[in-house]
Formats: sequence, C-alpha cells, structure tokens
Amino acid sequence: MILRGTVIWTPALGRAEVRERAYLVADGPTVRGVFDQLPADCADKPVTDYGDALIIPAFVDAHVHAPQFLNAGIGMDDELLPWLNRRTFPLEARFADPAFADRAYRAFLNALWEAGTLRFCAFATVHARATWHLMQLAESAGFSGLVGKVNMDRNAPEALTEDTAASLAQTEELALRARSELRNIGFIVTPRFVPSTTPALMEGLGALVEKHQLPVQSHVDENRGEVALVRELHPEARSYAHVYDDFGLMPTGRTVLAHAIWLTDPEVELLREKRVLVAHSPQSNANLTSGIMPARRWLSAGLSCAVASDLAAGSDACLARHAACAVQVSKLNQVSHAEETALHVPEALYLVTKGPGCFAGFAQPSGSFEPGFRADALVVGGERAAALDELLPRTPLERLERFLYAGDSRDICARYAAGALMERPF
Amino acid sequence: MILRGTVIWTPALGRAEVRERAYLVADGPTVRGVFDQLPADCADKPVTDYGDALIIPAFVDAHVHAPQFLNAGIGMDDELLPWLNRRTFPLEARFADPAFADRAYRAFLNALWEAGTLRFCAFATVHARATWHLMQLAESAGFSGLVGKVNMDRNAPEALTEDTAASLAQTEELALRARSELRNIGFIVTPRFVPSTTPALMEGLGALVEKHQLPVQSHVDENRGEVALVRELHPEARSYAHVYDDFGLMPTGRTVLAHAIWLTDPEVELLREKRVLVAHSPQSNANLTSGIMPARRWLSAGLSCAVASDLAAGSDACLARHAACAVQVSKLNQVSHAEETALHVPEALYLVTKGPGCFAGFAQPSGSFEPGFRADALVVGGERAAALDELLPRTPLERLERFLYAGDSRDICARYAAGALMERPF
Repeated sequence: MILRGTVIWTPALGRAEVRERAYLVADGPTVRGVFDQLPADCADKPVTDYGDALIIPAFVDAHVHAPQFLNAGIGMDDELLPWLNRRTFPLEARFADPAFADRAYRAFLNALWEAGTLRFCAFATVHARATWHLMQLAESAGFSGLVGKVNMDRNAPEALTEDTAASLAQTEELALRARSELRNIGFIVTPRFVPSTTPALMEGLGALVEKHQLPVQSHVDENRGEVALVRELHPEARSYAHVYDDFGLMPTGRTVLAHAIWLTDPEVELLREKRVLVAHSPQSNANLTSGIMPARRWLSAGLSCAVASDLAAGSDACLARHAACAVQVSKLNQVSHAEETALHVPEALYLVTKGPGCFAGFAQPSGSFEPGFRADALVVGGERAAALDELLPRTPLERLERFLYAGDSRDICARYAAGALMERPF
Repeated sequence: MILRGTVIWTPALGRAEVRERAYLVADGPTVRGVFDQLPADCADKPVTDYGDALIIPAFVDAHVHAPQFLNAGIGMDDELLPWLNRRTFPLEARFADPAFADRAYRAFLNALWEAGTLRFCAFATVHARATWHLMQLAESAGFSGLVGKVNMDRNAPEALTEDTAASLAQTEELALRARSELRNIGFIVTPRFVPSTTPALMEGLGALVEKHQLPVQSHVDENRGEVALVRELHPEARSYAHVYDDFGLMPTGRTVLAHAIWLTDPEVELLREKRVLVAHSPQSNANLTSGIMPARRWLSAGLSCAVASDLAAGSDACLARHAACAVQVSKLNQVSHAEETALHVPEALYLVTKGPGCFAGFAQPSGSFEPGFRADALVVGGERAAALDELLPRTPLERLERFLYAGDSRDICARYAAGALMERPF
C-alpha cells in the first residue's frame, strides 16, 4: 500500500506530525513509514494519490457494546438503572436468537466501518454462540480487535443470569477457539462489572486470565450509586478497582477499564501500576448523568487513557465526535477546576488512535504511522470539505479539527485495514 | 399543503403531541391544523404521503452568527479572547468584500437549509452592504427570520471599529429598508455586546428601538471575565443585563439575549419582567470554556428559553445535535446540583422549535403545528432509519430521539417553508 496525501498522526500524546504531499508506505499489513520522497524500491509500485486529502490513522474504539448499537440515541431520558432494565437488558436478551444476532451484528460492523473505526474492544452479550458469530463476522470483514462474552451471574434479569460454572466453561472454550481459529480478532475476558459477577465467578475468571494469559475488560467507578453498591457488596476490598485486582482480573498491561470517573487516590495508584488502559466515554457519562472524568488529572498522574464511544450509552458511532466531546467536557471541567487544563485537538486525536491502538492486549499496535504498526488508515476530505476550503484555505490541522468537530462519515473517502482498501463489509 | 405521516409537535414545554397516519394541513403559508381524517374541503386536494416518516416543525435558530459559518469546527483550542482576535474578527473583516460575502452567505444559507433550520435570528457583521445582501438572499430563498447589522465602536480591531454616528445611520437605514422591501426577513438591532459598544452608541440604538419599535439581540453573562469587564466599564449599572435596559435595549417581549450563564438574581428578575428570550448554546459554552447555563433553574424562574447553535462558537449547524447537547449538559449540571433536574427530549424539541419560533419579534409564530402558525416542517426518516426500524420497531418518540442524538441531515427527507416544498437554495 502506498498512499499519497496530507499525512497526520500523533506519535505521542499532544504531538501531531503533519506531512503534506507525503507517502504513507506499508509492506503487506504493516506500516513502513511516511516519506517525503518515494523510497527507491517503491518506484515501480502503484501509488494512490489523494491530492491534499488528509490521511490519518483509523479510529480504535476501546470500549463499545456491540449488541447495543441498535439502541444508539434511544432511551436517553432514563437514568442508569432504568436504562439498563428497560433498554439494555431486553435488547441483549434477544441475542439468544442467532438470526437476530446475525442481522444486528452485521449492522453494527457496517456502522463501525462507516464511522472509520477499524479496531475495537467490544462487549458482546452472555451468549457464547452469538459472541463467536460476532468474532467470525469481524474477522472475515477485515477488522482487528478483541471481543468478550459478557459474564453475569448476579443482579441481572433472569434471561441473562448465567450458571457460574457454565459461564466459566464457555468463556474458556471461546478463548481457546479464538486463539486457534482467528488471526485478527482475539478474546477478552469480560465480567460485566462487579455488581453483576459473584466472587466465585470472578475467582474463576481470574484463574482463566492467569492460565491463558488473557486480557480483561470491565467497568469501574462510573457513577456514585454504583460505587456505593460495590462498597456494600465487597466491604473487604480496599476499593472498587481493588476488587478486580483481588480476583486476578487486572493483569498488568492487559486490562481496559471503562469510565473511571470517581477513582480514589489508591485506585489511581493501582491503575497506574497495572498499566490499565482507562476508556473515557464523555458522551456516555453525560447521557447517563454519571459526571465528567477528570482527564487531565488522570493523564498527569500517569494513567493511560483512550476516548471511547461506549455505544449505546454514547449515542454516536463515530469517534470523531467523541474526540471533540472529550475536549468539550474537559473545558467544562476546567471552569470549576482551573488547574486542570483542557485537552486540545492533537491530544484528542491521539486518544482515539494511538492511545487505544497500543493497548498490549492487541497482537500488533495500530493507531499511528510508525514502522511496525498495523496499516489502518482513513482518507478524510471530499466535496463538502473542498467547497469550504475553496472559500477559505485551511491548514491540515484546521481541516483535521473541523472533521472531528463538525464532520461525519460523509467526509471519509476511503478506509484501509492492514494495508488494503476496505469496502463496506455487509 | 397537505402532508401525511407521523406528526409530532410540542404545544408546550415538556408536552409532545404525536399523531400517527395524520394529516398536517396548511392554508397557503399558515397551518390549519393536524387531523386524523382529511377535512371535507380537502377531499380533492393532493396529499403528499410520507408513510410513517416523522413530520416535525422545522428548526428555529435563535442565535447564530452568519459570517462565522466558515469557521465552524475551527480554532476550538483557543479561549474566548484569542478566539475572537485570531479567528472571528479576521473572518468578519472579510465581509467588507461583497463578492466574498455573497459566496459565504450562500454557503451559510445552504448549510441551514440542509440542517433543517428554516428560521433564525442572525448576527451579520458591521458591514451594512453585506448585511443587506444576506437579508435579500434569505428572503429570496424562502427563509424567515431576523438579521442584524452588528454595531461595534470600542474594543474591536480597527477594521471593524465603526464611527458611532455612521453606525447609527446605517442601522436606521437598514431597518427601514427591510420594513419596506422585505416580507419574511426583518431587521433586529444588534449591539455585539456591552464591551464593544460605547454608551453613545447604545443610547442611539435605544432611541431607534423606541422610535421604530424594533427587536434587539445581544450577548449577556457568557463568561466570568466578560462579566468582570462589564462591571469595570459600567460601575454605575446594577448589573451587566441592566446596562442594556438602562439604554433602552431591552424592549419587552422583543429581546433575545444569548448565553445568560452567570445571571444574578436581579438579572433573572429583569429578564423575566421584560420577557427576554434566552438563547442557550450549550455546545458553544463548552467550546469556549464558558460553563453550563442552568437551564432548569432559569425555566423554573419563569424565563423563556431556546436552544441555539451560536455558530461558529458552536460547531454543528444542525439544531438536532444542540437539542441533544442541551439535555447532556443539563445532566452534567444535575450531577453537582441534584435539585436541578435534567431536561428531557420533548423539552429539547420545544426549545429548538416553538420556544424560539414564538419570539414576538417575528411577524408570525412558527415551530408548532397549531392553527395560525407558519407552516414550516421537516420530514424525518429515510433509508438509514428504516433499516434500523426493520430490525427493531420503534415508537415515534423513540425515532424522534434517535434523530436528535444520532441523526443528521441525511435523515431529513424534505423541508417545507410557509406551506411549500423548499429546495436547496443555491
């Protein structure tokens, strides 16, 4: 793959590289680098020239609920518990039906493709069969990422409450099957969150994590009611986050935890030590009246962060808007916490590309154009942008910013996954 | 005009009317009503049947800066003052060039049309010629609304600083010309805000307001630095808002004030008494680190409110997203002010339709389907929505909510202004 255009990527948080009229070169699925002149050995290779369109890393969604896509933008007047009971659980229960799951997961993957998200960490449902189907669909469509069968054996509606032993057996089976049959989609252990998993289930999952060196994803400190509930359920634990660690569910460098709004100091220290990837979903946190995660404070404390959609508590499929939303809520946070300076645009791009793309649970890093990264890229431009630029010329970073704030999938002209043009999957 | 579909409108704040398979009937430009059975005298008239698509009132944007459309989504990492000086003023200065103004205003009106906003209160620039051109373009395209030439004679860059007498003369000339030559676009007196208008200018404008019974729009209490500056400039005034009133710039029922985040109790009382329409722009207020307007508190205190885009401090042209954003920030406000309950979806729809559409500065009300209202409507549906509904059927209010949160102009199938189908203007 050799693409020519205005190439932008963020090798570090807050640092954007911009190369105009440059070449992004991949050898097979892997980035070789970005070059101002075409390397000598590429002289006779075909170049796809996108003019001055932007070429950026494809988005990586570190926290998304695949079955909930159909609920995007629905039921937002409910608060967390009624929302789960009235909206989320009834929809997830339908994934017992393989035909429904097939149609819904195809629609989900089409939506991710359209939005430019080519890698993700997804929650499925408790259903092993539908989860395996999602993994196969995603693999065959050309995505990369991690998918987890959800584990729930307490505080859930009957249709979604699992037998503990069966939940563990199905989890291990899926993890092994994925490892032997799939290349680009891996399995991730996915206890829904502490309130819906018994100690016996968490202990068993922790043993699987250790035995097979698996990654883990879950939720932590999303809202204050939930934090109080966990304290009641686990008076023995030092904190909410420590419950996961106590049960072996926080493997170093291989854990994604969503939300992390209400972390205490010992929790911040724990997440830093364990190199947890914190998935920050600002739109979801507004929609569910959860609060604002203090992104600057956590970043300054040395936490690794990503900005994620959390569909369908987040209502947009496209991470461009979530990136902008992360900047917006960080500014609202700054109004009351002046010392916590707002995020800026190059940081926001990093948080939806390299930040999550380098999560060590993935086999190969993505989200940047450094050598060795998976060659996942979006071409951003097209007629709408060109018409505006003709009236008032813009710098590449201004065009990037406009895409994040005011663009949508109409502005994505092409998607490349692992060095190959990716067409709409289904 | 007779349209058939799923008709939704909000006759009062918080109350949504839903009529499935109903007829929206207009006599000429004016709504007759919504009927379950076609009225007898319409039996031989053509009916446009949109199946189960939603038919809602077209959006009304109570606060938008027309020249800034080209800056939407650009420069958001700057704070208010650098943003004005680096982004806003240089762009506005270009409207001295009639050719540039013509192209930019056509692009702006196309964008509003695409976004389903068919009525607005717009700030233009200080340039009388370009302002008049915008008014003519908007009138000829079929929009209705109010447009103001901006007045600025202090604390502005040289290119935009007016001679006080000339500013007043041009303002009066435009107001009279609009009244005699235009039917659907009116003139609104538009001092930019207290810091950029001298007492002499405000006094002169107040006299014009009184003499010609004109409406007024401006900004108030947007951020704390600005409030402090106004206190310094006008130590004699009881508050920022009282400065406008002291100069006759708050005619009862004919005033729109944008932002109103940091109102004091006497200001709330003044705005209530004067029946000011408060234009709440939550996205702008996040982008410029201004804060969250306490919408529930102002509504409970009896203030009239609208949700507005404030382009280009707000980055989306489409009021659907601003409506959702108003709900979202009201939830963030509720996290720290539990007694101020969040807005909900029917309220949000009201705040972008009837709330602003009934501003008495407009000749005829719009934004609802009650008899006598201007027949401005959007048809919302299309393939994307139908594909989702096929997987999981939705109620009309769920489909409306999804459009506000996750839809965009692709979901608007048709636009009607004053009882007639409106095509892309330019």
